[in-house]
Amino acid sequence: MTPPEIDMVSVSARMDEGYLSMLQLMETKVDYLLPQVDLWPNFALESQGATILRKTSSDTYHTYKEFELFGVSIKLPAIGPEIVIKGRSHLSPGHCWAFADLPGRLSIALSHKTTVTHVSMSHIPKFVSPTSSVSSAPREFSVYGKENLQDEETHLGTFLYDEDGDQIQTFKLPADKVDTFHYVTLNVNSNWGHPDYTCLYNFRVHGELAK
Amino acid sequence: MTPPEIDMVSVSARMDEGYLSMLQLMETKVDYLLPQVDLWPNFALESQGATILRKTSSDTYHTYKEFELFGVSIKLPAIGPEIVIKGRSHLSPGHCWAFADLPGRLSIALSHKTTVTHVSMSHIPKFVSPTSSVSSAPREFSVYGKENLQDEETHLGTFLYDEDGDQIQTFKLPADKVDTFHYVTLNVNSNWGHPDYTCLYNFRVHGELAK
Amino acid sequence: MTPPEIDMVSVSARMDEGYLSMLQLMETKVDYLLPQVDLWPNFALESQGATILRKTSSDTYHTYKEFELFGVSIKLPAIGPEIVIKGRSHLSPGHCWAFADLPGRLSIALSHKTTVTHVSMSHIPKFVSPTSSVSSAPREFSVYGKENLQDEETHLGTFLYDEDGDQIQTFKLPADKVDTFHYVTLNVNSNWGHPDYTCLYNFRVHGELAK
Repeated sequence: MTPPEIDMVSVSARMDEGYLSMLQLMETKVDYLLPQVDLWPNFALESQGATILRKTSSDTYHTYKEFELFGVSIKLPAIGPEIVIKGRSHLSPGHCWAFADLPGRLSIALSHKTTVTHVSMSHIPKFVSPTSSVSSAPREFSVYGKENLQDEETHLGTFLYDEDGDQIQTFKLPADKVDTFHYVTLNVNSNWGHPDYTCLYNFRVHGELAK
Repeated sequence: MTPPEIDMVSVSARMDEGYLSMLQLMETKVDYLLPQVDLWPNFALESQGATILRKTSSDTYHTYKEFELFGVSIKLPAIGPEIVIKGRSHLSPGHCWAFADLPGRLSIALSHKTTVTHVSMSHIPKFVSPTSSVSSAPREFSVYGKENLQDEETHLGTFLYDEDGDQIQTFKLPADKVDTFHYVTLNVNSNWGHPDYTCLYNFRVHGELAK
Repeated sequence: MTPPEIDMVSVSARMDEGYLSMLQLMETKVDYLLPQVDLWPNFALESQGATILRKTSSDTYHTYKEFELFGVSIKLPAIGPEIVIKGRSHLSPGHCWAFADLPGRLSIALSHKTTVTHVSMSHIPKFVSPTSSVSSAPREFSVYGKENLQDEETHLGTFLYDEDGDQIQTFKLPADKVDTFHYVTLNVNSNWGHPDYTCLYNFRVHGELAK
C-alpha cells in the first residue's frame, strides 16, 4: 500500500504549491486593492473636515497644458492641493498636485485634534506610469506637527518614499514623537529625479482622536 | 511506515489551517471590496435615471462649517440628498447627506417601474470613523412604495441597520410585500445616538424590472 | 490502518474541492475588481493629457431626460465623450457617452506618442443592467491610428466586444500592425441591438512610450 500513499503526498504537495502561488498572487492583488491603512481612520481627510492652509503651502505648479487643435486653444486648470487630502485609494496618472520648488510644503489643518502615530504617502506605481518611471514622486520628506496655529512646529520624523515600493507606504512615528496635534505640515525635501516638479497624489495622517 | 503518514497528516492539517485563516481573511476583504449586491441591478441609481423628490424629502442639515483662518471665512456647501443614490461602494467619512429631525424622509423616483424584493443601506464602518463610533448612522428605518405619485403609500418593511454589521446591509422584503412600484420612500425612525443629525451614505433598491 | 488513510484522502480531497471552488470564486471576484490591464499604462487617459478631438468625433446623443415633477421641468445635461477616457474601473449604469448613428466615431489624441499593442473596451455587464441586457453596448469596432493629424489613417484591427464577456475586454493588435501613433480613432460599426443609441463607458490604448 506504500506507493499510492507516496503518490498522494506528491500530488498533494503539487496541489499545495499551485494553491500557494495562486493564493500569493491573489493576496498581492487584494492588498493592492485594499491596503491595511484603508481600514484605519484618516485625520487628514477633506470630507471629514480637514483643510489645506494655502498660505503656508507651496504654490501650485502651473503647467497650463495648452492645446491648439483646429485653431482652438484650451487651457486645463491646474489641480489644487486639496486633491492630496481626498483619501483616494484609486489613483489616476496625472491626477495629482504639482509644485515646483524643493523643499515643497503642504500644511494641513486636521479634521480633529489627533494623537498622531503614522502617516501614509501614495503615488502611482511605475507599472502604470506611461514613462515606466516615477521621477516626480516624493523621495525624502519630513513631517511636522503643532497644536495651535501660532505654535512652533515639532519635527515628527523624516521618511523615505520608495519609488519601487507599494503604491501607498505607511510610516510609523518614533515613539517619543507621538503627541497631540491639530496641524500637520509635510515638507518634501527631494523627489526621484524630475527637474521641474514633484507630484503628490495622497497623504494621510493616522492615529487616535485626542482625549 | 506509520509515523511518516501521521506526520504528513499533521503537516497537512497545519498547512490547511494556515491556508484556511489566510483564505478567510482574504474572503472578508474581497467581500468588503465587492459585496454581493454590487453584482445586482440597483433601481435607485441616479446615473440610471432615478431622482430625489425634494419636496417630500427632509431638509438638508446645514452645518455650514465655517473656517476663519487668517481672517478668511469659508463656508462649505452642504451635501444634497442625491449623494445617497449614486450607488457608491467606496464611502468617504463625512461624504453623506445629513438631516436633522427624526423621522427623516427620503423620497425616490426609481429609474424604472420595479418589482422590489430587497433594499440595501450603507454607512462607513466604525473602524474608519475618527471617533470610532457611528452615532449618526441610521438605526431603524421603514420603506414604503407606491406606483403613482398620487397613490397611498404601501408599507414594505421596517428594518434595523446594525452599527456593528457590514458596511452595506441588505434587507429582504416579506414575500407578501413584493410588488411593483415606481416610487420608494425611506423613513429613518432612529439613529445610533447622535443628538443633532443622521447621515445617509447610500441606499439602493433591488428587484426586477416590472413587466 | 488502511481505512483511516482512505478516509483522510477523501477528507483531504473534499477539503481541496471546497478550497478550490472558494478560491475560484475569489479569483473571479478579484479579477473583476482588478483586471490585468489596470496594471498597464493607458495612453488614452485624460488625466495624463489625452484629449478627445470633438470635431472628428460623433455628436453626443441628446436624451434630455426631462422631469416634470410638481410642475418643475429638469433637464439633465448630456454626458460628453471625455467620460470614455477617464480610465474608470468602476462603471455606473448610464454613466456613459451615447451617440446615435452607426458607425460612431471617437477620435483621441493620445497623451504620448505610443507604440500601440492592445486596446481595451469596457461596458457594464448584463447582471447590473436594469433590463438584464446590454443592447446599447458596442459590438464590432475598428481601430485606426495616425502619427500626425493630417496623415491618412492606418487600420489597426477590427474587434468584437462580447456582450456576455468580461466587463473590460482587451484586444491584441496583429503583430504587423504594431506601430507608433499619436492619434487613435475608434469606429463603432454595430451595437447589440439598441435602435436609438450606442453607449461607450471606457476605452483604453495600451503599448509602450515611443522612443
